[in-house]
Amino acid sequence: MIYLDNNATTRVDPMVLETMLPFLQGEYGNASSGSTFAKPAKKALAKARVQVAALLGCQPEEILFTSGGTESLNTALFSATQLHTDRRHLVIGSTEHSAVLKPVAWLEKRQGYEVTRLPVDSLGRVDLDELATAIRPGRTAAIALMWANNETGVISPVPEAAALAEAHGIPFITDAVQAAGKILLSLEGLGIHSLAISGHKFHAPKGIGALYVNRHFPFKPWMLGGAQENNRRAGTENTAGIAGLGAAAELALHHLRGHAGSGEGSGAESVRQLRDRFETEALRRIPGAHLNGDPVRRIPNTSSLRFDGVQAEGLILLLDQRGICVSAGSACTAGSLDPSPVLTAMGLDAVAARSTVRFSFSRLTTADEVDQVLDGLEKSVVKFRSLFPAEGLNG
Amino acid sequence: MIYLDNNATTRVDPMVLETMLPFLQGEYGNASSGSTFAKPAKKALAKARVQVAALLGCQPEEILFTSGGTESLNTALFSATQLHTDRRHLVIGSTEHSAVLKPVAWLEKRQGYEVTRLPVDSLGRVDLDELATAIRPGRTAAIALMWANNETGVISPVPEAAALAEAHGIPFITDAVQAAGKILLSLEGLGIHSLAISGHKFHAPKGIGALYVNRHFPFKPWMLGGAQENNRRAGTENTAGIAGLGAAAELALHHLRGHAGSGEGSGAESVRQLRDRFETEALRRIPGAHLNGDPVRRIPNTSSLRFDGVQAEGLILLLDQRGICVSAGSACTAGSLDPSPVLTAMGLDAVAARSTVRFSFSRLTTADEVDQVLDGLEKSVVKFRSLFPAEGLNG
Repeated sequence: MIYLDNNATTRVDPMVLETMLPFLQGEYGNASSGSTFAKPAKKALAKARVQVAALLGCQPEEILFTSGGTESLNTALFSATQLHTDRRHLVIGSTEHSAVLKPVAWLEKRQGYEVTRLPVDSLGRVDLDELATAIRPGRTAAIALMWANNETGVISPVPEAAALAEAHGIPFITDAVQAAGKILLSLEGLGIHSLAISGHKFHAPKGIGALYVNRHFPFKPWMLGGAQENNRRAGTENTAGIAGLGAAAELALHHLRGHAGSGEGSGAESVRQLRDRFETEALRRIPGAHLNGDPVRRIPNTSSLRFDGVQAEGLILLLDQRGICVSAGSACTAGSLDPSPVLTAMGLDAVAARSTVRFSFSRLTTADEVDQVLDGLEKSVVKFRSLFPAEGLNG
Repeated sequence: MIYLDNNATTRVDPMVLETMLPFLQGEYGNASSGSTFAKPAKKALAKARVQVAALLGCQPEEILFTSGGTESLNTALFSATQLHTDRRHLVIGSTEHSAVLKPVAWLEKRQGYEVTRLPVDSLGRVDLDELATAIRPGRTAAIALMWANNETGVISPVPEAAALAEAHGIPFITDAVQAAGKILLSLEGLGIHSLAISGHKFHAPKGIGALYVNRHFPFKPWMLGGAQENNRRAGTENTAGIAGLGAAAELALHHLRGHAGSGEGSGAESVRQLRDRFETEALRRIPGAHLNGDPVRRIPNTSSLRFDGVQAEGLILLLDQRGICVSAGSACTAGSLDPSPVLTAMGLDAVAARSTVRFSFSRLTTADEVDQVLDGLEKSVVKFRSLFPAEGLNG
């Protein structure tokens, strides 16, 4: 099986699992209990906090552990709106993940918030001038703009947008679920209020994530109960998951910085080279193939391609038969009959959106796999078009 | 190390870990993606849902997986209050866990809810007549009453209270975190709206739990985003944790029902016998030792004992030096300088509350361990009293 669906989820790194195992075996103490027996669990939390902070370029006390990206984003939105309950306006990107879209739609429908959804251009980019225009000083409660899009990989101008928000005293939230571990981040001084990451997108297990909360800004907890996480997130700490997240963060940072002597960014560079070779070859070999999204300002592991005359579900099935695992887009909206809202926001019509397949690489992807996928992809597109010529190039 | 702090957390059963491992290794597919590769993950979720439903005596479609008891209780309270937003009154027990107390206090302070906190008697029991009196028909939005108390193990009259709530059309929520896996539960027909359980209290890992939602009652999701869990709980499913929860539920049910030929309830009975022997001996051997809570209507694994002239933290430390791990009460409130609100609600003064230690057993506890703890406990109490005679029996 060749796995190119790493934006949906990733394989747990064996070294991550090794870090987790003691806490699933003998070291089962409750980190919030005072006993000697709980000391290894407590130490694991402290270590993981340092490791995750290093990945994000922030302070350990700015990290709180959650059950994943969705909880982190729900928490961030709740916290930001609780800070200024008199403000009833939100600004978000129109291509945000459902973990932002849905809570914001709830605030709109049930709590009377007005919402400005920033449009994107045909390359999936938001415009900072439009953001500046959308801001209502004294009335905008929060701005949420994703760091990198899950379907196209397009990177938003987060530092610039956060500076704009900070200048207006508006909490700025960013979904970095697809950015963390794929590009180097350095949050210190950026003026971001809170930022969400998810472990299983960078080789930690599912069910663990983190929320960065800027130490200079106030914060209101969402999940209420015990005093865990310095009173910022209640619930017994998932020690094994947290230890795994820490190990995965350290491995990702090591990868991103490159191995000794090979220079900063070389890990991301090696993934980018594989992705670029795949993309260039696919676009060259397959007639009627097109790239979605900004070709430059993108995370290095993602390639969103559409194929004229092809229906994504069918192509994915043909690739699946060849042992190649890819997807049409977000697993969180899989099963929906609607075309991708991300692609339609970029101006693609429903037919074009439905002809899109996402290839997402990881540091575990090999050059040999890329060759096999290119071969399988070419043959599968040809096969689809021969089976359904009415939908084909000349159909 | 002898571990008698199983109400704080439990050891992951090796068979549970074995069930989890494939999903932390090769079977890392995203259960919500449509690919062939994700099929084992999907199957694991379905299997775990059946296993957890069997433990609770309900239907699989009534189970949704969460990150733990705290999330389940926050979700239940949110959902219930969203069902009747015009109702602004809540009834809860006064000895609830902080995962109920804190969200309810937030609703009270920030959302203008009125809250009736039902008192308990000196044995930790709520009075059904007081519950009936507290209900304000058409105005009470929800009732929350824990199934078993985490500090004393005292069992509330949940079926009766739920029937009362149902008769008034009020959603009834129960925290069964300390009950599930320790006593047989059968939810079908009880009229409970929602019920929370936590995996790590019965030998599953930390970071996984479930919420039972009665299929006959409406439900509003709390964590919003993707369409996971039939649109009732967003976020990529923690496949390994869920598989582990299912396996732990099956093992717990097997234990509770007793092994072949030994009759129903024999697993709980064997834990109860160990606990009772410990308790009887401790009360007999140690002068000035007392039991907290209802001696009869209790989960079979918990013994809350107080020792005149002893300060719990000191005694716990002395036991810790002997390799015996116990606690004063809730890990979720550990570090607090206040005496236990559970024990003070039962009428204990601060000194008596602070002299209380909780011994919580599990199916892994052995008779030999009980003997060692009895010996260590007796010696430690004597030592404490000799070190601090001013606080002693005649102090």
